[in-house]
Amino acid sequence: MEKLEMLYEGKAKRVYSTAKEDQVIVYYKDDATAFNGEKKAQIGNKGVLNNAITTMIFEMLNEKGIKTHFIKKINEREQLCKKVVIVPLEVIVRNVAAGSMAKRLGLEEGFALKTTVFELSYKDDSLGDPLINDTHAVAIGAATFEELKVLYDMTATINDLLKEFFLKLNINLIDFKIEFGKLPSGEIILADEISPDTCRFWDATTGEKLDKDRFRRNMGNVEDAYKEILNRIKGV
Amino acid sequence: MEKLEMLYEGKAKRVYSTAKEDQVIVYYKDDATAFNGEKKAQIGNKGVLNNAITTMIFEMLNEKGIKTHFIKKINEREQLCKKVVIVPLEVIVRNVAAGSMAKRLGLEEGFALKTTVFELSYKDDSLGDPLINDTHAVAIGAATFEELKVLYDMTATINDLLKEFFLKLNINLIDFKIEFGKLPSGEIILADEISPDTCRFWDATTGEKLDKDRFRRNMGNVEDAYKEILNRIKGV
Repeated sequence: MEKLEMLYEGKAKRVYSTAKEDQVIVYYKDDATAFNGEKKAQIGNKGVLNNAITTMIFEMLNEKGIKTHFIKKINEREQLCKKVVIVPLEVIVRNVAAGSMAKRLGLEEGFALKTTVFELSYKDDSLGDPLINDTHAVAIGAATFEELKVLYDMTATINDLLKEFFLKLNINLIDFKIEFGKLPSGEIILADEISPDTCRFWDATTGEKLDKDRFRRNMGNVEDAYKEILNRIKGV
Repeated sequence: MEKLEMLYEGKAKRVYSTAKEDQVIVYYKDDATAFNGEKKAQIGNKGVLNNAITTMIFEMLNEKGIKTHFIKKINEREQLCKKVVIVPLEVIVRNVAAGSMAKRLGLEEGFALKTTVFELSYKDDSLGDPLINDTHAVAIGAATFEELKVLYDMTATINDLLKEFFLKLNINLIDFKIEFGKLPSGEIILADEISPDTCRFWDATTGEKLDKDRFRRNMGNVEDAYKEILNRIKGV
């Protein structure tokens, strides 16, 4: 399968059409951005690492019965995926307080939340991807209440699967962001990626950060952290 | 009933203890603030007008079966109310897009929302009263899911009653903010005030703003707008 026309270029990936109407090739770049694009750089090999990491996670999720856009890895930087229309919402799950939520709510990083937090962010760069709630999403036509129920149910299951998967690798899944897409049938499936770009991973023993916070916070060893995640998943 | 000790001073009101353990006197000030306290001024007679307006609205809500903290008006600036512990959440209802939500979501003021929007704001001045969702509220211990259900059910009923009440006065209720309090029994009742400080009122014919936006946006005739609301309620 070969890349034809570029359909979309995002911050970390490009999406290309293929000879098959219902399939696309996703190309993983090394570009990294943070704070709604205010901070930009490249992380060496990030595209290769995130393609490998996302591949193994989506294969696990597919096996566990979660419907995803992922079909197969093509090469170091490319995946073959089902073509979807992206739902314009980021769904964020927070098992432990960290990052922007901790700051907004005046919580210490690591604060034990009394319940798992689910957030929606409206995907609109010009607005800075604002945090919204369910009624906002419906009021502006980003989703229906029925679609939100599907998103939340899938997200809760994915959270359970990911927490368990990573805990076996001695990693605490602090929080993560996922995106969903719609098939022509209207069915909603998991899309985008799951990687150290989109998750907070803390070593369960040392608390060491093994994710994009190393980039956001200028902590160094960014590529090493991504490699460490891949190696643990591969059982190296 | 006389004011004893001042228990609390907010931006627009003071709360005093009384000889009765379970009752307080609420005193309405002329102080006006906007943008989380960044803009401050006095609006002539605002305390007198908002005390009168809130009194008539809470009397109407009490008659319609909504449990509120309001007992009776004592004088021009004071009300006798049940003593409550305020739930640290502002509940905001938006029937039409306006104000901060319109800005955050890139909507024109007046945009017809596809569903009524309900928002929660975490009452914490040092954090700027951040917008939160249900899971945040529960995660930080501001409320339980059961309490949120009570808040939303009461708020939806109050919205229906207020919309109908104001439409008869040729006023569209665009949005409003309410607060709730807990009695020692744990029962949740409506507290705080309902006035042009806490609602957006647009004349149903002309669209003229008859609320605190005249102050926020330096439109002039602020006191006149508040008087107009009171006069329409009184049927003058």
